[in-house]
Amino acid sequence: MPTFTMDSRQIYYESHGQGKPLVLLNGIMMSCASWKPFIEALSANNRLLLVDFLDQGRSDKMVGQVYDHGIQVQVVRRLLEHLDLKSACIAGISYGSEVALEFAVTYPEMTERLILLNATAATGWWLGDIGKAWNLAAGSGEAYYHTSIPVIYSPAFYTERHEWMEKRKELLIPLFGNPDFIGAMQRLTDSSENYDLRGRLGEVQCPTLVVSCQEDYLTPLKEQEYLAAHIKACHHVILPNCGHASMYEQPTLFASLIAGFAGLSHTKFDI
Amino acid sequence: MPTFTMDSRQIYYESHGQGKPLVLLNGIMMSCASWKPFIEALSANNRLLLVDFLDQGRSDKMVGQVYDHGIQVQVVRRLLEHLDLKSACIAGISYGSEVALEFAVTYPEMTERLILLNATAATGWWLGDIGKAWNLAAGSGEAYYHTSIPVIYSPAFYTERHEWMEKRKELLIPLFGNPDFIGAMQRLTDSSENYDLRGRLGEVQCPTLVVSCQEDYLTPLKEQEYLAAHIKACHHVILPNCGHASMYEQPTLFASLIAGFAGLSHTKFDI
Amino acid sequence: MPTFTMDSRQIYYESHGQGKPLVLLNGIMMSCASWKPFIEALSANNRLLLVDFLDQGRSDKMVGQVYDHGIQVQVVRRLLEHLDLKSACIAGISYGSEVALEFAVTYPEMTERLILLNATAATGWWLGDIGKAWNLAAGSGEAYYHTSIPVIYSPAFYTERHEWMEKRKELLIPLFGNPDFIGAMQRLTDSSENYDLRGRLGEVQCPTLVVSCQEDYLTPLKEQEYLAAHIKACHHVILPNCGHASMYEQPTLFASLIAGFAGLSHTKFDI
Amino acid sequence: MPTFTMDSRQIYYESHGQGKPLVLLNGIMMSCASWKPFIEALSANNRLLLVDFLDQGRSDKMVGQVYDHGIQVQVVRRLLEHLDLKSACIAGISYGSEVALEFAVTYPEMTERLILLNATAATGWWLGDIGKAWNLAAGSGEAYYHTSIPVIYSPAFYTERHEWMEKRKELLIPLFGNPDFIGAMQRLTDSSENYDLRGRLGEVQCPTLVVSCQEDYLTPLKEQEYLAAHIKACHHVILPNCGHASMYEQPTLFASLIAGFAGLSHTKFDI
Repeated sequence: MPTFTMDSRQIYYESHGQGKPLVLLNGIMMSCASWKPFIEALSANNRLLLVDFLDQGRSDKMVGQVYDHGIQVQVVRRLLEHLDLKSACIAGISYGSEVALEFAVTYPEMTERLILLNATAATGWWLGDIGKAWNLAAGSGEAYYHTSIPVIYSPAFYTERHEWMEKRKELLIPLFGNPDFIGAMQRLTDSSENYDLRGRLGEVQCPTLVVSCQEDYLTPLKEQEYLAAHIKACHHVILPNCGHASMYEQPTLFASLIAGFAGLSHTKFDI
Repeated sequence: MPTFTMDSRQIYYESHGQGKPLVLLNGIMMSCASWKPFIEALSANNRLLLVDFLDQGRSDKMVGQVYDHGIQVQVVRRLLEHLDLKSACIAGISYGSEVALEFAVTYPEMTERLILLNATAATGWWLGDIGKAWNLAAGSGEAYYHTSIPVIYSPAFYTERHEWMEKRKELLIPLFGNPDFIGAMQRLTDSSENYDLRGRLGEVQCPTLVVSCQEDYLTPLKEQEYLAAHIKACHHVILPNCGHASMYEQPTLFASLIAGFAGLSHTKFDI
Repeated sequence: MPTFTMDSRQIYYESHGQGKPLVLLNGIMMSCASWKPFIEALSANNRLLLVDFLDQGRSDKMVGQVYDHGIQVQVVRRLLEHLDLKSACIAGISYGSEVALEFAVTYPEMTERLILLNATAATGWWLGDIGKAWNLAAGSGEAYYHTSIPVIYSPAFYTERHEWMEKRKELLIPLFGNPDFIGAMQRLTDSSENYDLRGRLGEVQCPTLVVSCQEDYLTPLKEQEYLAAHIKACHHVILPNCGHASMYEQPTLFASLIAGFAGLSHTKFDI
Repeated sequence: MPTFTMDSRQIYYESHGQGKPLVLLNGIMMSCASWKPFIEALSANNRLLLVDFLDQGRSDKMVGQVYDHGIQVQVVRRLLEHLDLKSACIAGISYGSEVALEFAVTYPEMTERLILLNATAATGWWLGDIGKAWNLAAGSGEAYYHTSIPVIYSPAFYTERHEWMEKRKELLIPLFGNPDFIGAMQRLTDSSENYDLRGRLGEVQCPTLVVSCQEDYLTPLKEQEYLAAHIKACHHVILPNCGHASMYEQPTLFASLIAGFAGLSHTKFDI
């Protein structure tokens, strides 16, 4: 099991394929294992690096501790150092996109390209109160499922993939009833509470791709319009018929956009 | 206090102004009292009729009973009969728009015009599971507030009107902690569970106005696109910068659209 | 024939109904006669005032003269003076909305409410070059028709109302071949060339309604988003399935919005 | 100069790089030379094939002949045969996307993947009449420029890249005044007049990517929504801040999407 340590905490990561490094950062409920269907496509022309954040998957848990995104930014920095990489293309979805963005403003020289899926520049009052709803539902797997999951998917996907969703429900309700898992979820949720990079978006130096999903009701389109308006070399694309869980709802577009943008050698076209 | 009875249950209603009757039906958490700021504007050229549904405001509570929207449709029919009105323009928001729509397909001859704000044709799996989240949060005022309220407003309104929202929070958390109120809310929520008029939209006979709100994340735009595609004489309008609570977020447009559409004598323009 | 004079030029106008005055200003190819289907609806609760701009309909032609929107603003001011009206609700579509907006910033005390349909704050390079295409096509009725008309309608309307469009084509091609008519059109088009109120939008004092149409490809949605972002008390609504000719494509919504917003006595709702 | 012949007509093409073949088909005013800025990015992992349609660039002119898209479909088939290729990923923009789509329904076994940028399924009355405006303006370079060019670009691009547009104007007005060039443009425009694949979209067998541009006023968003609704394995993406000339307005996204989607080995993700 490939790991490295950071302040005596153990971090799990994976490396797939060869080529320019592409780090893909997890959403809050995810782990390296979630990316299995994408490994072949995303490691075809890149070295794909996956990592479990603290409190995720096979990395150490942070029981009893309070932290913010900054510690996860250090996880990413340590990953690159551990692998002797000077820089990488950094991609992330949701929670992972927030860490990716904070990494890019903190370590611009280590960020070759930035890909933000289902991202926001800050946890405002609205999203903060939704996070509180999740944490207040943490006592019951059923309550946690119904509070957090529907809003992550588009109504159309929830309906058309009803059977798949029902299987996930069977899987997730017990998991959400597990105090260890849900305790980690609460800490991860809390770690976003004070997240606010609105004043620092001008510090992103690298070509950036922002991907919006038209039915994303957790980090809605306007959040990414804000990012696109404030990040210098920003390219913005919208996926219709897609909610917050873009990698499940539109996996082909998800993979095409990341592989396509990460693979570009040009930063600018001479037009 | 103006009331009428239906099957020995007492129903509260209000009548304001003179002119062609315009019935305005409440959203799920609302009551006649909620419409106070709109009475002057909406009764200027119409007789404005407000009514508390069963389990709302000053109408009787349905403790221990199970029902669906059909019973509220009867409330509206009885209101018109009580006032000796053969027909009316029927408007509604959210829960009230669903009752309005069911009234229009059940009693087309009593529906002169139909105005549907923040409406859906059916409670699908997605919306049904969100309703379950509300009901599962019913044990705590704080949990109920955070689960149900943010998603009703656009993030922009939640932020720009932060002070107003915080006052509502202070007001609503104790109310949501009141077992009588929250019991009624649970029954009202359950009454929508099997709502599905998708197969009956062709039965709407009257000119219809459907109002969508671009940041409505409870009954999103696609729901109203479905209505507009399946109701014959349907006119569709979209409010940007507006969530599910359109009457609070865009009161001027809310009132203009209802007054303007209810006031048209033409059903068709000769163009 | 009701007329007044301005600098010895004769201006034709119409007054319909009683109530608070509502001035409705023509698009570039229109005249008072174009509003016939709307007179009943828009004069039900208002005194509806129509007027032919210079170079339009039954008002004087400006052969050999060069002018800008300012002269049409004076036409509106003179109309109100002629009727001894201190102020009015000013509505306009396209060219008429530009004159309405310039009237509102020039005479804020005479503008009670402002309604802008298919409007822009300025004739930029893009719209200016489209205007040049119209003028360059002026030598042939057929060329002028095909250059100017399709882009005014949504593709869906052009297709669904094909017969109606073909009748208009038969009517308009000879009209566009008439040098007097097309000369006036060229002067009216030229009068918009230097139109630019972007720096003065903050001077609008009254409640304003901005109506966008989703398939308006002459004054696209972004133009009205700009207006809505820069006018203080601005309310913004979007009509789906509608091109630049909103009064023909969505007459019911067109009339509902104008009548509803003009009829509001409130400027603010106490929410 | 690499060429092949088809019915004794000479066709010019280019081949760049190694890998799975990717054919990129020109828009109506374009030629192989137009793709120069994209060759490096699009040939990095694919063999990029460019071709001038009949009446384009260095391929033969069709003076005095009438034809439809079918002949250009044969150009593509002959290109693949000439190079001994059994199949390819076929991409196209505008006119080229229409030929690409007709190729895919005619030769499904030769189409591995299909990428349609700024596409429509049919030339309806609206687009047909716009085509007539172009042809009617063919007598004057200045008229042709103003009739055809602004509508191809988004207003924002036309404004922000004013200097670049002015240079193109200087270049294009003389070109549009050249009877040989404009004669070819007229024939190409006429060749689209009867284009209609609406009834055959179900015959597309391969994974398809449809790219819409939010400010595309020549083949608006609804055209691609139609394609996405009727092509089986269709993936749909929207570019904001982009008009019909997507390769000039958003070159980075243009290249990322084509390279990313063409490069996917998966047709389906196991989700």
